[in-house]
Amino acid sequence: GRLAGDHYKWRLLRANGIEEDYITGDGDPEQKFIRFVKTMAKAIGNPMYHWCALELKKYFGITDPINVPNAAKIMYRCNDLLKDDPTLSARGIIVKSNVEFIGTTDDPVDDLKWHKKIAKDKSITFKVCPSFRPDKALNITDEKFCDYMGKLAAAVKKDSLDTASDVLDALKTRLDDFCACGCRAADHGLTYVPFNDISMEECDRIYKKALSGQKVTPEEADGYVTRLLIELAKEYKRRGIVMEIHYSCTRNVNRRMYDLLGPDSGFDMIAASDGCGNLAKFMSELDATDELPKTIIFSLDPLDNARIDTLIGCFPGRGIEGKVQHGAAWWFNDSRYGIEEHMKSLASLGLLGNFIGMLTDSRSLLSYARHDYFRRIACNMIGNLVENGEYPADEHDLKMIVEGISYRNAKKYFEL
Amino acid sequence: GRLAGDHYKWRLLRANGIEEDYITGDGDPEQKFIRFVKTMAKAIGNPMYHWCALELKKYFGITDPINVPNAAKIMYRCNDLLKDDPTLSARGIIVKSNVEFIGTTDDPVDDLKWHKKIAKDKSITFKVCPSFRPDKALNITDEKFCDYMGKLAAAVKKDSLDTASDVLDALKTRLDDFCACGCRAADHGLTYVPFNDISMEECDRIYKKALSGQKVTPEEADGYVTRLLIELAKEYKRRGIVMEIHYSCTRNVNRRMYDLLGPDSGFDMIAASDGCGNLAKFMSELDATDELPKTIIFSLDPLDNARIDTLIGCFPGRGIEGKVQHGAAWWFNDSRYGIEEHMKSLASLGLLGNFIGMLTDSRSLLSYARHDYFRRIACNMIGNLVENGEYPADEHDLKMIVEGISYRNAKKYFEL
Amino acid sequence: GRLAGDHYKWRLLRANGIEEDYITGDGDPEQKFIRFVKTMAKAIGNPMYHWCALELKKYFGITDPINVPNAAKIMYRCNDLLKDDPTLSARGIIVKSNVEFIGTTDDPVDDLKWHKKIAKDKSITFKVCPSFRPDKALNITDEKFCDYMGKLAAAVKKDSLDTASDVLDALKTRLDDFCACGCRAADHGLTYVPFNDISMEECDRIYKKALSGQKVTPEEADGYVTRLLIELAKEYKRRGIVMEIHYSCTRNVNRRMYDLLGPDSGFDMIAASDGCGNLAKFMSELDATDELPKTIIFSLDPLDNARIDTLIGCFPGRGIEGKVQHGAAWWFNDSRYGIEEHMKSLASLGLLGNFIGMLTDSRSLLSYARHDYFRRIACNMIGNLVENGEYPADEHDLKMIVEGISYRNAKKYFEL
Repeated sequence: GRLAGDHYKWRLLRANGIEEDYITGDGDPEQKFIRFVKTMAKAIGNPMYHWCALELKKYFGITDPINVPNAAKIMYRCNDLLKDDPTLSARGIIVKSNVEFIGTTDDPVDDLKWHKKIAKDKSITFKVCPSFRPDKALNITDEKFCDYMGKLAAAVKKDSLDTASDVLDALKTRLDDFCACGCRAADHGLTYVPFNDISMEECDRIYKKALSGQKVTPEEADGYVTRLLIELAKEYKRRGIVMEIHYSCTRNVNRRMYDLLGPDSGFDMIAASDGCGNLAKFMSELDATDELPKTIIFSLDPLDNARIDTLIGCFPGRGIEGKVQHGAAWWFNDSRYGIEEHMKSLASLGLLGNFIGMLTDSRSLLSYARHDYFRRIACNMIGNLVENGEYPADEHDLKMIVEGISYRNAKKYFEL
Repeated sequence: GRLAGDHYKWRLLRANGIEEDYITGDGDPEQKFIRFVKTMAKAIGNPMYHWCALELKKYFGITDPINVPNAAKIMYRCNDLLKDDPTLSARGIIVKSNVEFIGTTDDPVDDLKWHKKIAKDKSITFKVCPSFRPDKALNITDEKFCDYMGKLAAAVKKDSLDTASDVLDALKTRLDDFCACGCRAADHGLTYVPFNDISMEECDRIYKKALSGQKVTPEEADGYVTRLLIELAKEYKRRGIVMEIHYSCTRNVNRRMYDLLGPDSGFDMIAASDGCGNLAKFMSELDATDELPKTIIFSLDPLDNARIDTLIGCFPGRGIEGKVQHGAAWWFNDSRYGIEEHMKSLASLGLLGNFIGMLTDSRSLLSYARHDYFRRIACNMIGNLVENGEYPADEHDLKMIVEGISYRNAKKYFEL
Repeated sequence: GRLAGDHYKWRLLRANGIEEDYITGDGDPEQKFIRFVKTMAKAIGNPMYHWCALELKKYFGITDPINVPNAAKIMYRCNDLLKDDPTLSARGIIVKSNVEFIGTTDDPVDDLKWHKKIAKDKSITFKVCPSFRPDKALNITDEKFCDYMGKLAAAVKKDSLDTASDVLDALKTRLDDFCACGCRAADHGLTYVPFNDISMEECDRIYKKALSGQKVTPEEADGYVTRLLIELAKEYKRRGIVMEIHYSCTRNVNRRMYDLLGPDSGFDMIAASDGCGNLAKFMSELDATDELPKTIIFSLDPLDNARIDTLIGCFPGRGIEGKVQHGAAWWFNDSRYGIEEHMKSLASLGLLGNFIGMLTDSRSLLSYARHDYFRRIACNMIGNLVENGEYPADEHDLKMIVEGISYRNAKKYFEL
């Protein structure tokens, strides 16, 4: 039985001394599950414990505590249900979770054929649209950068992308294709937010340098990323889609495990943030010409909470409620503690009532339960404020806030 | 009706998408108020909500919740009272708030004529004294620095200030004038605390460079500020007045709005602190010769809490209780959450009982209610510690602590 | 009567304006105690207050609140008991505290004769073993470094240590001697964790430079420390002992007091951490060849909590439960607030059930009460999670967690 949050789970298992055979390896599934349950017993206060309990209850109707005596029973019951229960098919889980809209994350070179297929299928009651994630086009220091540029050229039916403007044109073309498929957001994952505001000409020089196989300096790389991010952000604004920025992560911390398992295997850590100074300059540059799109900022560094909350207050909505958002507690911060710290800071420094709420980038369908988790934590916090007399027990306004954070604000924000 | 905290309020309105016409512009006042009330409904957990409720209750006797149905009633009632009720004149509000002493913030070039007038007015039952704020004399990289030096020269009846020593002499002269008017504190606002400990000769060279219209380097500017701060601190110590240092703010983050509205319009953010290392060196330099004045440290970066609390523990009071203070949660941190985090850290690492309590730099007279807000939060925290059995229910000692934080400590500290 | 935590106590007394005569000086003991009690009255929320109350109760049976009316009574009662009560001898206190194992902190040049004596004494019911603390062998920029190398040479019966390899060999020899005396851990205290991964040859060049009296650059010093730490860590792994790393402290902040009282007199502060990046590289380097020993990381910067908790999750235990540990809230963080923040972060990001719990480096025997303090706080947190329904009220699993954190995990981890 595979429960939510693979990376997260793997980390806990490894910390508990479990051998890799019983984590990502070929160990006996039942033995794997026993080890997982034993590990969970120690995970008091960890969101993984809560997620599993919520998923078992919501999708499998299982309310037995997750412990060794119950392990076999839980495992076989889940496996049986996954085999037999039509509401536990991929589509069934989505329907059962009352999902209206799924924004997948897609590379600009993706042909979107599945999105087109789903859009045509009348039996599918929810929307599945692509989100634009052009990280690989920005990773100019990556060894596969030139290869990628070949793929991007092919995706727009060109032989090659010879200039930085060509890259930008290709991305715009693909962005239009994405928008034709209902794309509502572009997402960027960065180690840190750079700000080296160079001209398009200089950017082009750096691009050609990289394309010719020469090594670009960190400063040049920052310049290339800055210029492209600015130009892309303007395109997002023009098309009315949301820009998401994720940053402050150090990836692949463990060299040995990277060599064994490759990237995205659960060996990442929070990086110390640079303090949002570059982000402020980047956003100011865009707002100066009224070309700042709706923007959601996600830092993996929880120490950024107050800084981001004061940063977003510097950019007027001009007709848009909550135009610049401090994204929900993300990844490592997606615990009760992290969610509460995020919302306490947001409420103290801004308008909690405009918060668009939870976003999860989990690839597990069962992890829709995390939205429940988030909403329970949010409602608990709001209820406490009312009980403490810090906000009136006003049905109308509280409904607006709670329904807003849980559902309506995101729907309005993404114009779904 | 204008309620507390303009900058703070503007930020929330802008975040809520309200157009500038209805914020700082000429929009219809009633429409402005409606927009404000609608915004407040979303401000659950925000201190602005609490401040408004406290101000309405304390000064206007209004206990209706702040919401759309009550908006017109609240607005007209407040306007009527402001027009008719003599206790709601500027002086009335001060008296009603039991104010004993007001420390205004004044530039060294100020002639203090109003302070002298007030001091002579027997009908005024509270004291109003200037505080010395020589920021402009330290801002050597500011484009108006040379102009300002002309004004400072004029303020001490000189044609010009030709050397850094002249600047210092002028500031000392003015400081004496301030002290003659009852000045109890000097206040410094810095982006960050520098420490480049240069000689007076080197400082003079840099000053002359700036005066001649040449650009000084960041390192030179740090040297000039460091030297002047050290010399000024010694003067404060000599005169027995308190030194306040405010830092870690990035101002005017939004270039477009800066061009439209100028500085101090609500577009500032928390800057990542440098970690108090320079502050430690600065204070050690002064304490080495027993010339460290009473000092209050305010960082806008809440991450400095524990660092500051361990820093202040490194400087003995030598006869003065709580000589070096970690100033109350300031500006963006002046929320229930920020106040509690500040006091939890202070109590854990030092003596809460010596804390001089709340200071507000709000320009709104109604914002005296924030002192109530602070005291309620402080008393709630102290009461909880007693209820949890973490401190005995000892009337005598608790009275000392609570009265101290609320009133007596500050009175003693500033020697009022 | 001397109660717990000298440095900590001194800081509070100084902050309260007490003159040094009544702190570290020769002031009348009764007057000293009165001043201490008066200071304690203001220490609401400070762990010193709780420690004193716990020590008085646990070791002296005194439950009177610590206040001025009770001061004389408490002082004389404690002094009488210390004189007359055999359970309050050094050994008595250790026995009364149910201590099984004491790991002292010892320099590699120590001859360990007391440890050998204690080991032979059948009347001693607890174990006292050395811990290896080679800080002085790493402090290459310290003015006493060359002197120390002479002592280290003598300790291994050599005339001199001419190369970095000689240093390493000497340390290995001493480490073997320590292990023969039951050593279970090596401890390192660093201002910050460096990572300049140089060769042994380069390291040797730098060592010889220092030995010849030349000044090494900060980069060279980092290289020397990095190389030696890596080589030592491998030795710890080979011998199956635990590596502890303490960092992020700025020492001797107050120059005047340093000149008066020397180091370790209570004038240290939290340093801003560099963000764990170097620590990650250091650990990855060791794990790459499976030479990472069991490791406990202690940062004095509480802002490191989440970073460390994600870092330790990047290093698999491979058969060892909780192989890499985030050490208990240390020194300035050893308050209720600090302990809770540490455990909330640890629980949210890892397995609280594997936590080896409290470690204190206090030199006061009475401070065993701090382990009680820690356990109460831990149990309160765990109990609250159960009461909130965040973990089942499962006697078996909760017992495993609570007994583990309080006792069993450390015993297993250190292989006692």
